[in-house]
Order: sequence, then structure tokens, then C-alpha cells
Amino acid sequence: MPGAELARIIDHTLLKAQASPADILSLCEEAVRYGFGSVCVNSAFVPLAAERLGGTGVEVCSVVGFPLGAMSGRAKAHEAGWAVRSGATEIDMVIPVGLLRAGRDDLVEDDIRGVVTAAAGGLVKVIIEACYLTDAEKVRACELAEKAGAHFVKTSTGFGPGGATTADVSLMRRTVGERLGVKAAGGIRDLVSARAMIAAGADRLGMSAGVSVMEELRAATAL
Amino acid sequence: MPGAELARIIDHTLLKAQASPADILSLCEEAVRYGFGSVCVNSAFVPLAAERLGGTGVEVCSVVGFPLGAMSGRAKAHEAGWAVRSGATEIDMVIPVGLLRAGRDDLVEDDIRGVVTAAAGGLVKVIIEACYLTDAEKVRACELAEKAGAHFVKTSTGFGPGGATTADVSLMRRTVGERLGVKAAGGIRDLVSARAMIAAGADRLGMSAGVSVMEELRAATAL
Repeated sequence: MPGAELARIIDHTLLKAQASPADILSLCEEAVRYGFGSVCVNSAFVPLAAERLGGTGVEVCSVVGFPLGAMSGRAKAHEAGWAVRSGATEIDMVIPVGLLRAGRDDLVEDDIRGVVTAAAGGLVKVIIEACYLTDAEKVRACELAEKAGAHFVKTSTGFGPGGATTADVSLMRRTVGERLGVKAAGGIRDLVSARAMIAAGADRLGMSAGVSVMEELRAATAL
Repeated sequence: MPGAELARIIDHTLLKAQASPADILSLCEEAVRYGFGSVCVNSAFVPLAAERLGGTGVEVCSVVGFPLGAMSGRAKAHEAGWAVRSGATEIDMVIPVGLLRAGRDDLVEDDIRGVVTAAAGGLVKVIIEACYLTDAEKVRACELAEKAGAHFVKTSTGFGPGGATTADVSLMRRTVGERLGVKAAGGIRDLVSARAMIAAGADRLGMSAGVSVMEELRAATAL
């Protein structure tokens, strides 16, 4: 995959509690410079990122109900709607993990659908936080995301005890076929892991290490 | 401090992403059995906890904007309002840490005031996430919480790299005097640390280890 194509599938990500407005602006500058597909930020920073990135072709992605997923579904929908009205075109939401594990698939589906509806045409990625789930639960989570009208399933928040694995990406891809996208996120820190995730079936990568991966690729190409 | 009095100042806490409805019901049962002041849960579980605890004297506390604090202020206010209408009488909100560190005290104050207003008379505790702050920033965070009309300041989410320290509790108490409460939370796992926090000035403790602390106290008293 050529560099420009790789950059386009990277969500350039900064979600730390202590990130400042200046840090978010740097993230945006890097996204423009390297041609990343989007920046992925907490919802408080959506207006700032949207203002900086207007007209650049870089999308603004807001996380919602992040990272625990245990915020009420109503609050998630409100957060998503506000983010889209403030300039986000993509929403990465976290499922209510405890409800899925308890077999309350009806509530999980409602939770996702509420965000999809509130996002009003925005692209919705559903974080299943795979580190807490059995394979059967991962499959159910993907099926519920599809039923609820989401556009992507995503492996991890990056804040849980485990991140993306090629086994999970591959399982999620088999489950959703080509009907939904699969985003790998959490612990992808170098070109080798980025390529492994793509080979396993990911068509979007969430990374905070996007800049160093692109520099790694440039160095390798220059050899 | 006698056992019953200690129990009354403990917020019996379960905030893990993977907590199930059954886990929340167990938390409520324990709170009733041991006489804890409240249960502290994610907002999705407020209706369940409120239904179980109605008439028992145990309060329901909902976290808001948790644990990163970087959710938009509008979404925090919405989450808090919904939680109170669903039966929560206490709200533990997280400040926008990155905005405080960047000196945007105006925005931090607005963020807190939005939650206080939305909580409509509910008790609001402001989590300053002290592990990310200098002492001067901790003092500013406490002053902003007081200016914005909050009722308590709280040390930590328990999800950051550091929890409550006696030094922070003492600093926060000196800053807010007796005008606000001080809640210590994060890493308080035994009777010795609970007592140290109280000695340093805490008048509320957030703990997931409340049951074992009460059992420890009972054993010590029986000696």
C-alpha cells in the first residue's frame, strides 16, 4: 500500500484526558501535513478541530460514551448529535459492554441505534472493546452494530487492558463481510503492526503513532 | 470513627466498563447491608440502582463525563440532567483537565456550572484528577468548583495513573475550607488508608473496597 493510501485510512488520534487545545491543533496540523483521513478527538475538542480542518479534506471524528461505554444511551445520543452539529462527520461510540455480556442485546442495539439516528448521516463506528468479550460475544456485538445501522465495527478504545489483535480483526471482518468497515485501534505502534491489521481485514486504523509510522514508511521507501 | 459513621461517608463504587446489571444489583444490596451513604455507578445504571434503592436511604450517585472529562460541556450537562431525572441525587463530574492546564479557567468554570445547573439541586462533586495537575493547578481547580456552585471537590477518577493522596486531600481541604466537602477516591483499599484520608481532611470516600474495609473494622472492633 503506497504512503498516501495508508495515510488516508488512518484516524490520527489524541484522546488523553490531559490533552490541551494546543495539542489538538498540533494533531490537526499533522493530519493535514501527512494526509491522514481524520483526526479522532474527545467531543469537547470537535469545534476547535472542525474550525482548523474546514476545507482541508481531513474529517473530524468524535468519540462518544468514551471509553467505558456505560454512559446512558440518551447521553450518548446527545453527545453524538452535538458533535455532528459542531462539525464532526464521524462518531466512534463504545457499546455498553456489561449489557452485551449480560445478554441484553435489545438494549445494546437500542443504544447503537440511538447514536446512529442522532448522528444524522454521520459515519458511525461501533467500538466493541473486544478485550472484555468472548469470540461469540464479539460476533454478537458486530451483528448488533450492523442491525442498528452503523457503518463500521472497531476493536478497542485503547484504554482497556487489551488493544487490537489480528485474530479479532479477522473475526470481525468475517462477521460483517464487506457490508461494514472494520477499524483496528489500540496498540498499533509501527508499520509492521499496521500492515498486519490491514492484512487481517482492517480498512481503517486508529493510531496515535501515525506520524512515526508514516516516517517509518518513508524511510523504508527511500532505501 | 464508629463503623456506622464510616459507612455513611463511603460511596460504594463500581464503574468498570464490563459491570453487568447483576453486578450493580449486588452493589446495591451491599450498600443497604453495610449502610453505605451511596452507590456510585455509570449513568446507564442509574435507573436500575434508583429502583432498587428507593426508600432505603442509600443515595444514587452517577458519574458524568467519566473518566476523561474531555466530553463536551453540553453533553456533560445533558448526562447529569438525565441522571438526576432518573433517580440520581449526586453527580460526580470530571473537569476538562486539558483546558485547566491550558489556563482556560473560564471554560472550566462554565463546564462545572453547566452540570450544577442541570443537576437542579443534586449534590455535585467535581473530580479534579489531581494526578495530572501541579499543586497550583489543584488549587485553581478547587476554586473554580466553588465559584461554579459545586458542593464537593474530589481527588481522582481511579482510572488515571494516580489516585488519592493525603497530601492532595489536605491541600484541597485548605483551599475549600469548610465551605465544600472533600472526597478522596482512587486506590483506598484498606482501613489504614481510609483513616489516613479522613485524618487529612476527607469527609467522603469513594471506594470499591468498602465491604472489605467494613469487615476489617468489624474484626478490629471484635478484638
